[in-house]
Amino acid sequence: MSTPMTPPSSETLRERLAAARDAGLALAALDAAGRTSLLAGMAQALRARSDAILAANAHDVAAAQAQGRPAAMIDRLRLDPQRLAAIADAVDEVAGLPDPIGVVTHTATRPNGIRIERVRIPLGVVAMIYEARPNVTADAASLCLKAGNAVVLRGGSEARASNLAIVEALHAAFDAAGVPRAALTFIDDPDRDRIRELVQADDLLDLVIPRGGEGLIRFVAEHARVPVIKHYKGVCHLYVDAAADPALALGLLVDGKTSRPSACNALETLLVHRAIAPVFVPQALAALHAHGVAVRGCERTRAIDATVAVATEDDYAAEYLDLILAVRIVEDIDQAIAHIRRYGSDHTEVIATADAAAARRFEQALRSAVVMVNASSRFSDGGELGLGAEIGISTTRLHAYGPMGLEALTIERTIVRGDGQVRHAPAVA
Amino acid sequence: MSTPMTPPSSETLRERLAAARDAGLALAALDAAGRTSLLAGMAQALRARSDAILAANAHDVAAAQAQGRPAAMIDRLRLDPQRLAAIADAVDEVAGLPDPIGVVTHTATRPNGIRIERVRIPLGVVAMIYEARPNVTADAASLCLKAGNAVVLRGGSEARASNLAIVEALHAAFDAAGVPRAALTFIDDPDRDRIRELVQADDLLDLVIPRGGEGLIRFVAEHARVPVIKHYKGVCHLYVDAAADPALALGLLVDGKTSRPSACNALETLLVHRAIAPVFVPQALAALHAHGVAVRGCERTRAIDATVAVATEDDYAAEYLDLILAVRIVEDIDQAIAHIRRYGSDHTEVIATADAAAARRFEQALRSAVVMVNASSRFSDGGELGLGAEIGISTTRLHAYGPMGLEALTIERTIVRGDGQVRHAPAVA
Repeated sequence: MSTPMTPPSSETLRERLAAARDAGLALAALDAAGRTSLLAGMAQALRARSDAILAANAHDVAAAQAQGRPAAMIDRLRLDPQRLAAIADAVDEVAGLPDPIGVVTHTATRPNGIRIERVRIPLGVVAMIYEARPNVTADAASLCLKAGNAVVLRGGSEARASNLAIVEALHAAFDAAGVPRAALTFIDDPDRDRIRELVQADDLLDLVIPRGGEGLIRFVAEHARVPVIKHYKGVCHLYVDAAADPALALGLLVDGKTSRPSACNALETLLVHRAIAPVFVPQALAALHAHGVAVRGCERTRAIDATVAVATEDDYAAEYLDLILAVRIVEDIDQAIAHIRRYGSDHTEVIATADAAAARRFEQALRSAVVMVNASSRFSDGGELGLGAEIGISTTRLHAYGPMGLEALTIERTIVRGDGQVRHAPAVA
Repeated sequence: MSTPMTPPSSETLRERLAAARDAGLALAALDAAGRTSLLAGMAQALRARSDAILAANAHDVAAAQAQGRPAAMIDRLRLDPQRLAAIADAVDEVAGLPDPIGVVTHTATRPNGIRIERVRIPLGVVAMIYEARPNVTADAASLCLKAGNAVVLRGGSEARASNLAIVEALHAAFDAAGVPRAALTFIDDPDRDRIRELVQADDLLDLVIPRGGEGLIRFVAEHARVPVIKHYKGVCHLYVDAAADPALALGLLVDGKTSRPSACNALETLLVHRAIAPVFVPQALAALHAHGVAVRGCERTRAIDATVAVATEDDYAAEYLDLILAVRIVEDIDQAIAHIRRYGSDHTEVIATADAAAARRFEQALRSAVVMVNASSRFSDGGELGLGAEIGISTTRLHAYGPMGLEALTIERTIVRGDGQVRHAPAVA
């Protein structure tokens, strides 16, 4: 497993992508029951081969430790029997989701009698480029395959042995279901040039989803000819309006910042209307302090508590992913909206208010993917929003925006059925 | 009008795009009635300034003639009072379409009581890069603006004077509606470097739609960082199945090939099941001959009529846009499907058959944007399919696939309304 492999030549990569495309046609020919049964087999195979997967993962973790990688990265990398069982369970959950393929989204009959149907079909071949988390290998594969797409995975080198062991298990289920292994193609090559070649193969791939650090996403966006759905950072805001219930707002603040600071739907900035600030800000600072959150505040915040550190422009733009929060007291809702437009990432914004007109103004003035009114930013998640599972959260305002479930891995096409209708009825000679 | 302008510097282009983005926020703040009234004013302004527009167009046409441009190009360029009236009428029609913005596409309440709503919002700023047809200027502007998007137009240099006169008229309506002129930004610069800068401004533009020759589209696709919806060629097929009604199939053939050969939804290749070929092909060749269509056939076709020219690989891949048709007799439906997969462009395919199982197999095996069963390929058009109007026909299997109407210029976002729900209910200190 530690023997370096020869990176595939560019021709080989394209050949593999062409094989993935052809395998996608075989996959699309399966019916819903066939895809469900393929995924159930994948979950079983992960369980059957858990010893091999855990051994491979131990190898990756040891290598990462020997290289002195950060503890947070090693934690993302590490599997244990519980985590691996959860990965297999997640594949079973995706298997049980309603099948998105063949769903008719619209029907109409035109005056000339042609019957129009819009129907969901798979996108085709979806590539996922990701970093250290080996659970993405099984998650992305199950979601793409459930939606009838072939999937091309390029995982991070830190998780190489884990990923290869997971893919080997999944492929065993392919054989049993009679689906070509190329329907799940794993690119085992650490060279970034291979990513460049991959994302330029617009004749063979239909979509690329990069998941990882901003550097990876920018590299993909810069070189891609294949359509990309980006998920940049989540700089999520809570705006506490003059008409907010302070206790309710405090609950949203603590949940949003502390229940999982490393999540992209965690809060990064608190904006407070100046009218409610004298009541709310002292409570908020006390609660944040009690939860170990470091605060960086504007001058008005520091006038309330001089021990608060100074917030800079960089703080307002930061995705801390940590127990740090920027706090700013604003003149009014317009200044809050202007702040979010300037520093936000179009991910998720929250307003706490009992004033329906203020809520409406906040919703309409902002174009973020998700707006929460009196609910926690942490609900901005495919599972919490009822999508069943999530392949990512798009901040690209095209195709999908916000949490992406199975539907986002499909496209609607049109079927027209007629009885010989023509457009201009020319004389037939 | 013939004085060359200094091409704007790159900074100026980005400044103009930033102004378009800001103007888009003002536009999105209009309600449905406000956008309808803006478009009605645009239609009126085109009528009020028709003399100036026709004079500018005469200048463009004279210049194109002096440069010896092809007659087909000059025809696409030329406006007359009737054509200009039709352009204004089309803007009025778009004004009258149902407003796509604010439409709620899905609602749900989760077990924890949060109410979820998916709502259409504008994409933001849409750029259209196109060639000689000045009608696109008003069409694209009206569709984008109706959907609440700011629009950036970069037209071809042949239509420069016409485009500037049309934009001047439209801008007069903006002033009356109190909408910043930057909500319709026209890039008056023939340099292709400007296109490159435009399509790389992914922080300022949300979508680029190139419309024109394959060279333009490939140039955009190669350089773009902004998402692109491509419309490559339309190599549309009619497959006449063994179970087809020959008279019905003949009607589809003649309409598909001859009612408007220059349209992308015109037929380019006829595939005939060998069982019906002895009956159908002689009738088809006679009808095509009577309509002045030149045929390029396979060996089996030439065995029926030796005067038919030989079809090459290039013929099967060609988008003739002319009275030329490739004809191939196939073994069975599988060979027809394999042919279309190999040579098709994912645009529109037609099957003529009375056999429902054959129709179903054809629909499922092909992933083209539109599949017609016993109806003409010429219905693959936004107007004919009931979309009201069309900004293009996407052959990109992401966001929109096939004819694109107003909905394709919007995106769904999520609004969540709660009563203070949190995800993990941590203790509030």
